[in-house]
Order: sequence, then C-alpha cells, then structure tokens
Amino acid sequence: MKKLRLFTPGPAMVPEDVLLAMADPIDHHRTGQFRALFKEVSELLQYLFQTKHACLTITGSGTCAAEAAIVSCLPKGHKALICEAGKFGQRWGKICDAFEIPNEKYSLDWGHGFKADGVAKMLDEHSDIDTVIMTHSETSTAAVSDVEAIARLTRERDVLFIVDGITAVGAIPVKMDEWGIDVLITGSQKAMMLPPGLGFVAVNDRAWARIDSGTARAFYGNLKAYRKSFASDDTPYTPANVMVKGARVALQRIRDEGIENVWSRIASIARATREGAGAIGFKTFATDPVDSVTALVVPEGVDEPTLRKMMRSKHGMQIAGGQDHIKGKVIRIGHMGYLDRFDAIAAISALELTLHEMGHQFELGAGVAAAQRVFAEG
Amino acid sequence: MKKLRLFTPGPAMVPEDVLLAMADPIDHHRTGQFRALFKEVSELLQYLFQTKHACLTITGSGTCAAEAAIVSCLPKGHKALICEAGKFGQRWGKICDAFEIPNEKYSLDWGHGFKADGVAKMLDEHSDIDTVIMTHSETSTAAVSDVEAIARLTRERDVLFIVDGITAVGAIPVKMDEWGIDVLITGSQKAMMLPPGLGFVAVNDRAWARIDSGTARAFYGNLKAYRKSFASDDTPYTPANVMVKGARVALQRIRDEGIENVWSRIASIARATREGAGAIGFKTFATDPVDSVTALVVPEGVDEPTLRKMMRSKHGMQIAGGQDHIKGKVIRIGHMGYLDRFDAIAAISALELTLHEMGHQFELGAGVAAAQRVFAEG
Repeated sequence: MKKLRLFTPGPAMVPEDVLLAMADPIDHHRTGQFRALFKEVSELLQYLFQTKHACLTITGSGTCAAEAAIVSCLPKGHKALICEAGKFGQRWGKICDAFEIPNEKYSLDWGHGFKADGVAKMLDEHSDIDTVIMTHSETSTAAVSDVEAIARLTRERDVLFIVDGITAVGAIPVKMDEWGIDVLITGSQKAMMLPPGLGFVAVNDRAWARIDSGTARAFYGNLKAYRKSFASDDTPYTPANVMVKGARVALQRIRDEGIENVWSRIASIARATREGAGAIGFKTFATDPVDSVTALVVPEGVDEPTLRKMMRSKHGMQIAGGQDHIKGKVIRIGHMGYLDRFDAIAAISALELTLHEMGHQFELGAGVAAAQRVFAEG
Repeated sequence: MKKLRLFTPGPAMVPEDVLLAMADPIDHHRTGQFRALFKEVSELLQYLFQTKHACLTITGSGTCAAEAAIVSCLPKGHKALICEAGKFGQRWGKICDAFEIPNEKYSLDWGHGFKADGVAKMLDEHSDIDTVIMTHSETSTAAVSDVEAIARLTRERDVLFIVDGITAVGAIPVKMDEWGIDVLITGSQKAMMLPPGLGFVAVNDRAWARIDSGTARAFYGNLKAYRKSFASDDTPYTPANVMVKGARVALQRIRDEGIENVWSRIASIARATREGAGAIGFKTFATDPVDSVTALVVPEGVDEPTLRKMMRSKHGMQIAGGQDHIKGKVIRIGHMGYLDRFDAIAAISALELTLHEMGHQFELGAGVAAAQRVFAEG
C-alpha cells in the first residue's frame, strides 16, 4: 500500500467531503439555488478574510486574481511599490510591467520579510508612490512580512495597500479590517482546502474609491464587473460552480474549527517541522520564517533531487523543491490544507527514512522525537 | 422524485465518471504523473479541435481564454474587426476597448450569422484591419456564422482569424486546420462535458508569428508563457488540476464516440427540438440556427418567466432565457453535454406539460411526436 500525502505549498490536501460535494450532479449558476450557495460562501469568505467587505470570487489561479486586483487598483496616474524577495513578489512586478503600470521595485535577499521601516524609507524616497503591493507569505522562500505594521504605515501615509495573501489567508493571522489592508487576495488551493481554480479578492471602501476613480486596464480582471454581479450573489462570467460547492464545505470546516484554532494548529505543525528537521541537520532557509510553509536547507552531501524523488516514489510524500537560484538547495514542506499533527510527524518520519536509505549519517529518530516534543508541549 | 436535467447552453450536463474522476484524492501538478496526464489531455484536445497545433489550457472561464487570445494576437500596431450579432460578439469588442486595441465593429441584427461577403465588404472598406474576431456559434441568439467560408477569405487576404468556438467546438463541425482558422477558443462547460473552470486556446503558426512580433498587453493572458510551459507538458500558473483529470475522461468519451458521430448526434437533437417545439407553436429565433443550442420564440400569450420557472420547479428542467432586448421573448435550450435523444424528448415533453399546466391551448403530444419522427428518420 502507498498512500499519497501532499506537503506541497499548494495544491494542498482536500478533505474527502469537499471533493464529493464537487462531484454532485452539475447545476446551472443562474438559479436561486446557486445564488443562495454563493451568498453563503461569500459570507464564509468574510470570516476567513476577517472582513466585513465583499470578497469577490474569480475563476482563475491566484495569479489571475492578483492581476485583477492590480489592474483595477492602478488605473492611469498611479504608481506602485513592488516589494519583492522571491518568485511571487517578482511576479506582481511583472504584471505591472506588462500593463505598463509605473512602479518601483524594492528588493530584499530571498528569505527575508519586509518590515515597516524599510517600506517607510522607500516611500520617503519616492513620494509619487501611492500604492504598495506586498506578498504576506512568500511561498518561494517561506518568509513572512510584517503586514500588520506596514498596514499601519500605509494608513498614516494614505497609500493604498494591496496584499497577496495567497499562502497567508486561512493559514496565519491576517486581519484585513483590524489591520487596515485595502485589498487582500488568496487562491483556493492553499489554506482553503480546495483544489486550484478559484481566486478571491476582498476590497475595502478606500480601494473601491481608487478603483472608481479610473478605468481598469483589462476586462476579465475588472473588479467593477464583479462588484456589480456580487450585489445579486452572482459573478459576471461563468464561475467554476462545482468549486463554489466545494468551498461551502471547506469553509464551513474552517468556521467550525475556528480561525484562531486553525492558525495555531498550523503554527504548531510549522514549529514541529522546523524543530524535527533541525534535529536531523536541516536549517530553516528563511530569516523570517512563515508558518504556512517551511523551506529547509538540504544538509551538505545530500542530493536534493534524489531526496525529493525518493520521498515521492518510496513513501508517497509529495514535497516541493526550490525555485530559481535556490533550486537544488532547499526543500519546501507545506503546512496548509487538510493536514493534522500526525501528518506532520509522517512527513518528518519519511524524511528520516529517506535520508537513511540514501546512506546519510544522522541520529535516526531524532527528528520525529523533536517534533513530538513540540506537540507534547502544546 | 425530481431529477435535475440541464438544458442550459453551458454549464451542460457532466457524466458521472467525469465528476468522480475529479473527486480522486488531490495530487500536485508538478509531477511526472500530472505531466503525462496533461500530455494525454492535450492530444485529445487536438482531436477535438481537429488540429495538429498546440491547444493551450488556461484556468479561467471562456471569457478569460478569449481575452488571452485577443491580447496576445493584437499587440500594438494591429486592428481588429469585431463581428457582433449578440452578447458574446459584443464582449470581444469590449475586451478590445478595455485594452485600447483599435477595432471596427461590424454588427448584424441578433439571430443572424456572418457570411463571407459581408466580412469581405468590411475588409474592403477598412484596409487597416488585419485581424477578424468572430463568434462561431453565438450562444445568446443561437445563430451560426459561416466560419469555413470566412476562414478561406481571411487566407486570401492574409488577415488573422480568431474564432470564439465556445459553443461550437465539440458540438458542430469545426475543422481548425482544414478550414484555416488561426486561433480557436473554447470553454470546458459546453460540448466538452466538463464543469466550468477551464478555457482552451489552439494557436497555429501564423498566429504564433503574429504573437511573437510584439508584446502582449497582459500577463495572465500572455500566450507565450503558456507555450513555454506547454513544451514540458505544464502550465505557467497553477492549473485547475482536478478539471484536467476530468477532461481526460470526458475527452476520451468523445474520442470513443467519434467526433463526427458527436456532431450528428447533436445535430439530430437540435432538429428534433426545433421540429418538436415548432409543432406546439414555438418559432426558431435565429435566421441562421446553430445546432448546439436553440433559441425559441415563446408563443403569444405565454409568460416566459413563468414558463421557465415552472420547467425547473415542477419538472427539474433547467433551460435558459433570453438576454438584453430578447429577454422575456425567447427561451434557449442547449443540446451540448451529456445528453442523448431521450433527454431531448424529455425536454419537449416537459415543455408541453408546462404549457398545458399554464392553460395554453395547443395539441398535447404534437411536440414529442414531431421530435420522435426526426429520430425515427435517423
């Protein structure tokens, strides 16, 4: 027997009842039944996003949703600060460039998170910047930025704050309204415990004022159309309606568990993973590690591609590698989705067995023991 | 007992085995297994599109895929002819306008299809037009355009031809390579027997030459990125991977039935629906009716919203209404998806029973009898 376990930082594992809800006979989306479902899901999304503002549903990947937010919030005459310290931060800059949206790039070394003082300095130097685009949890490096403090800063400076929450929302504390995030984005295949295919964008009044002040540079991504349809619990273009069905079940699970409990479950799994992997020679890559995914530096003498391949082929554990210049140097283990502490123990156990099979010298059992202690301490 | 039957022109009914394939435990998309699946689906798509060129998979609605085709094929310096005679033709014009793509609108009354001579005249009058954008099957009016002849015309004039095949591909004869269509678009929730959530764009060499000659005005919709990933059986952004799983099953069904047999099954269902509805007082709305969906003018004295509502609430038959100025005047019955002749008989039967329950005077049974004769004649 070989069970498949997904520890990739998206797609993450999906509960069986969510998948089966999606397998119900297909229905049309312009019906009272679907509108009621859509309304319920939209309310559950508000809980997930910790906001009273509308959470719009876009059929597409997280990148599609982020593009929609960017092109809608940056009509002609505005300029963005792109905070990039990894693959996803870079991508939002590429979107601005593709749409000819003026922008400054603020780059940090991979593994670092952005802090308020650094952002403040950039805003001081470039007084024409009126929008900050930031990735809360940089999936490619597993680093977290101080979104709460940066939100406060953008309030003081009257700068619009767009946050890519793609591996943050539902995984680590993100409080849209309390912190003052203007636009918050996520994708279905991360902490929401859904397959890939839907993106979500929550927009507050400040952001709507910006959006309404100009013309979006795109059509499919024009959030005004989504707002108009949202008023009657609908979407402007045919939605991935089976995904919306699954979303009800998945989001209800999060509501039942309680978002704070979800955050602490994931945080303890992340800590156990870092401690467990640390005990067998893996260093955490990020200077500012996030709890939704961990990037681990592969010990000297261990071949990363072989390690990852054996994890899958021998033990059914799908983890991710590094991208760009950290490819071959790190492995990434996700903590989001339908995962509990015993799945985390299984991941460390498989990592140990794989290292052992590769002939690497270390104290077998030290990893799972260290992880176990984290859970025992609560 | 009340069974739900979907006769909407998308989403259309999905076979149970497709839905269950999508409910398999979720896997990651950057794996050898997924690449093999993606390759198989891409080859099945080539059969569906009747092309040897790459069929790219985009996570998003059909509109998202159409936007990708338009923004990629119309970099700065090009001008489009928008052929609009319904809701979807209009939409492609709105996309051009949103992206500031120069375009001329060529409008016909709703219900008419475009012919080669009309397009030739427009090209004569506007010599700066180098791209024609056309909806093959206009879902909002159920009218068909003569794409085969217009493709020939665009070959003669060296004009790029982008075809929205959203309710055409897999439903009515569309032969991309034989006819010389440069770019062909479809969506998953129509004739492909899948839920909504994926769009597909096939691109020939002429179109790639155009795309490579400039810079796309967008990021998510930039087809160059999809081509690059496609070379290694991958997508540039996280795909709706469970949908790709479903696509294998659905497309294999089409391959097993044979595309010509699918076309003739749908054509005979369309004819039976027109004859059956005609026998009880419904006129076909379109002057150039398409076989993938039929728009029927509701007889004098019958309240369209009530008719449609009762079809659903009493008989579980979901049909569509009209849009814009034909709202309340027509009903639309789709012939795509997991539907056979007996489903078509059921639709006519429910239409008759509903009219009868509404107190409308007509010869009960005449509709199903007329439909039955079409099937008997083969």
